[in-house]
Amino acid sequence: MSLYKKHDTTINKAVQALHERTFYAAFPEHPAPAVYGETADADGQNKFKATLGKKFEELKQASPEGWAGEEESPYLQEPLKISYPTFSVKTLTERAGRAFHQWRKVNVHERAGILTESLDRMKARFFEIAYATMHTTGQGYMMAFQASGPHAADRALEAIAAGYEELQRFPTHAVWDKPMGKFNIQLNKEWRAVPKGISVVIGCSTFPTWNSVTGIYGSLITGNVVIVKPHPGAILPIAIVVAEIQKVLAENNLDPNICQLAADTFDRMITKELAEHPDVKLIDFTGNSVFGSYLEALPGKAVFTEKTGVNSVILDSTEDIDKVAANLAFAVTLYSGQMCTAPQNFYIPEGGIKTSAGTVTFDQFAQKFADNINALVDNPKAGPFVLGTIQNKKTCDRVTEAEKLPGKVWLKSRSVENPTFKNARISTPVVVEVDASKKDVFGKELFGPIALLIKTRNTDQSIQLAQEMARDHGAISCGAYTTDPQVREKIADEMSLVATPVSFNLVGGIYMNQHAAFSDFHVTGGNPAGNASFTNPEYVTKRFTWVGHREPVKA
Amino acid sequence: MSLYKKHDTTINKAVQALHERTFYAAFPEHPAPAVYGETADADGQNKFKATLGKKFEELKQASPEGWAGEEESPYLQEPLKISYPTFSVKTLTERAGRAFHQWRKVNVHERAGILTESLDRMKARFFEIAYATMHTTGQGYMMAFQASGPHAADRALEAIAAGYEELQRFPTHAVWDKPMGKFNIQLNKEWRAVPKGISVVIGCSTFPTWNSVTGIYGSLITGNVVIVKPHPGAILPIAIVVAEIQKVLAENNLDPNICQLAADTFDRMITKELAEHPDVKLIDFTGNSVFGSYLEALPGKAVFTEKTGVNSVILDSTEDIDKVAANLAFAVTLYSGQMCTAPQNFYIPEGGIKTSAGTVTFDQFAQKFADNINALVDNPKAGPFVLGTIQNKKTCDRVTEAEKLPGKVWLKSRSVENPTFKNARISTPVVVEVDASKKDVFGKELFGPIALLIKTRNTDQSIQLAQEMARDHGAISCGAYTTDPQVREKIADEMSLVATPVSFNLVGGIYMNQHAAFSDFHVTGGNPAGNASFTNPEYVTKRFTWVGHREPVKA
Repeated sequence: MSLYKKHDTTINKAVQALHERTFYAAFPEHPAPAVYGETADADGQNKFKATLGKKFEELKQASPEGWAGEEESPYLQEPLKISYPTFSVKTLTERAGRAFHQWRKVNVHERAGILTESLDRMKARFFEIAYATMHTTGQGYMMAFQASGPHAADRALEAIAAGYEELQRFPTHAVWDKPMGKFNIQLNKEWRAVPKGISVVIGCSTFPTWNSVTGIYGSLITGNVVIVKPHPGAILPIAIVVAEIQKVLAENNLDPNICQLAADTFDRMITKELAEHPDVKLIDFTGNSVFGSYLEALPGKAVFTEKTGVNSVILDSTEDIDKVAANLAFAVTLYSGQMCTAPQNFYIPEGGIKTSAGTVTFDQFAQKFADNINALVDNPKAGPFVLGTIQNKKTCDRVTEAEKLPGKVWLKSRSVENPTFKNARISTPVVVEVDASKKDVFGKELFGPIALLIKTRNTDQSIQLAQEMARDHGAISCGAYTTDPQVREKIADEMSLVATPVSFNLVGGIYMNQHAAFSDFHVTGGNPAGNASFTNPEYVTKRFTWVGHREPVKA
Repeated sequence: MSLYKKHDTTINKAVQALHERTFYAAFPEHPAPAVYGETADADGQNKFKATLGKKFEELKQASPEGWAGEEESPYLQEPLKISYPTFSVKTLTERAGRAFHQWRKVNVHERAGILTESLDRMKARFFEIAYATMHTTGQGYMMAFQASGPHAADRALEAIAAGYEELQRFPTHAVWDKPMGKFNIQLNKEWRAVPKGISVVIGCSTFPTWNSVTGIYGSLITGNVVIVKPHPGAILPIAIVVAEIQKVLAENNLDPNICQLAADTFDRMITKELAEHPDVKLIDFTGNSVFGSYLEALPGKAVFTEKTGVNSVILDSTEDIDKVAANLAFAVTLYSGQMCTAPQNFYIPEGGIKTSAGTVTFDQFAQKFADNINALVDNPKAGPFVLGTIQNKKTCDRVTEAEKLPGKVWLKSRSVENPTFKNARISTPVVVEVDASKKDVFGKELFGPIALLIKTRNTDQSIQLAQEMARDHGAISCGAYTTDPQVREKIADEMSLVATPVSFNLVGGIYMNQHAAFSDFHVTGGNPAGNASFTNPEYVTKRFTWVGHREPVKA
């Protein structure tokens, strides 16, 4: 119980934060020396560099059946040459099956203590994870630190908290005492929260820890064992997390196979074989819609997906159009539009956007938007760091294709120089005007730095299109700018019906892309963009089953 | 708010009861004149009789497109000749679609008040519903009163309570105040629990209210509109409930189409058309596994099923074998085994059952069991009332087939006389010995009064078979008799892993068939017998989506 005692304040605070939904963070997001230590950054970078070109030997998974790794740095355009132990699906599932019967018997307090301890260990490696994230995902340094480090750890703690609470929502024992008139029937009842079994968490290439730790910790806290199947292009960040979990498990005399890493390579992916294995009962997935929908249809499994979506911005009216253009320019530029929350479709009425300084026409806004993007990407102190790089070459092709779309190209994509990495793969945002009738063009996710400006008859049509896109193709975020309370409520209501959260009138240093742990539900689960939500009760309750036994009280 | 104020004590008590899980009932289960009034029974019977042969005109669904009804009394072997208004799927879904936008805007307190009020109205008709249930399902009077009346109303209240609680688990508003060092970012956040849309509740022929009200009230409390599609053979009991819901809605100036009845006939079933309609987002179903699995696989819908299962009894050791035999004889005889919780497979070690009076052999127990069934069914003051009648002729065929199974027939099925209803369709339980190797025989549900005695090598094999049956074919209940704490824990653990609740050592007036509202989770959702559980949090949380909007706090 000592790890539980060590962390019980943190765990209980996290449960409270989940319900208050005011600002809360257990892990400081600023990579400040004052917080993390004077040498933390340099140490982390050195540790990362020392990992390159070698076997990753930290895992406690015995007798590897092979070694493989194909990660490449989008900054260096070079392979990392790290190799990871590989195992057959048979070995992984057999080890998981054995570990399950140990882990499921560990009580919820001990589990919570062990898992929270592992986050502390992860914290000690945030900088190393940040460099690993940069050189696999292409994120800028700040995002790589925050998203893969403190923000991921906070989301993991959120999942621990949600599971910890749900597992205790019903009593373990009660006496049921039914008056029957002349006598009572008394039963001793007990309830067990029974984990489902083996959980497979399938990672993505852009957010290898943030999008995986929720499933990992959500499954572990509820007593399941986890096989982590990272994207072959982004293994190292989550491998470090798994290694730390395994160390804490081993220190507590538990089988490290309670949480295994299952690295694979592009030409020999084991994802389908893992997912279809009959002992695998839970699957978490972040990635494309085709594979996500295939997983969701697998019978007899609880599947949690974050797939693609088409995120909209509705522009109706504003006090200060320049602040709006600046905010949205940042939103499309941040990590080159490779966030699931990045805006893609911008709906602007043909009559223009009403502002306190008069109406801003469609063309005026388009130009302002393009100008703001240019100003940002051409600012050598900001542009390269906000943009990061393009993770996958295919995204560059998509950007090139976007410039050939039928409609005026307001801004062409180009490269800018990264002062540190001369070979970095960079594409600045492309901005294209698309006719409102061309749903075949804007009615799908164009992943990457691609912004489509869509001229609508009026704001009602803008709302209708944003709603239709979310309903038919999914949406994870939505931006809206309006000074009219009635229009605001209409947007709030109509987008609610398609389960899309709306960020209203964001200006300054907060962006629609950002979802905060303990406050913003990430993905709602209510539209085709995914069936899971970080972290609502369903996200953890589907991972276990309440089973009640009963027996007469002895006379 | 007046109906909420009227019922808030009941609602809050119900929420508390859900979590305490000690005995709680809001509706008295005994049909006593002292509770329900001296003339309540006779009045109910008269009202039921007055309904026969007529149009059921209580519903507030305008402009019926037809009238139809094909119910038959298993007691009288005669049609009830009641006709119900019928509507096309197009009409039903269009009306539901319109009503949705009214109902979803009613706040949770008002919804809870209105729904709880409708249960009070239902209470005033418990006796009428009891006779309607007898003459559609064939249940005995006492079960018909309890299961379709107070027990159903308690399960409905449980669903209201669960929804009421979940809808308030997160705040409607919060200020998110993030310290950024030199300044704070402040956002006003709001969260809406957004209902999914149209809910279809598909009833069964044996428990037309009990198995439907949970879905109806679970969907309504969470803001969805409901189309109730009863089994064509058992419409009247739930039609009365729907009529009462509609009356309370109308009294509160709400559209009665918030809860519609969609009666159909055997030759023109509208179930598939309803279920597949794109606007239908929620489906509740009780019935056979083939149709249930078809529904579960429909994409884009949340589906709640209670399907078939194979319920086991594990006999290891006991203090008093006669009490055990009597209890189990009652369990198989009650409503002629037509309960989803009735036992089917009885596993008895070839070495016999250990008792305080020495070992009871397999054959000795089989004989005791048959003798106890005979004594019960031949007792004119008990037998006919416990048995009720057989709802569906096909069940009688199944009983006949069971007597031809390869194995010793320990007890043949026969009829006994019902003192009131000379034509009642009665089949007493058949008891057949089946070899433990014959999984093709006992590895499926044989719905009806069919008990299979399976000789195992030992209790370990009994447990293994019970577990395998539950894992592969589903199970809703399990009985076990053992005086050995280690064996008890092994059974509790192994059956937990296949999500099956175990009733240990039940003797006297409590049976494994009985699941109590506010205490026993009915169906766990964790094995093939169904994916829903009355009433765990998932049962209501899947019916709505949390959506959060946010906007900067004005300076």
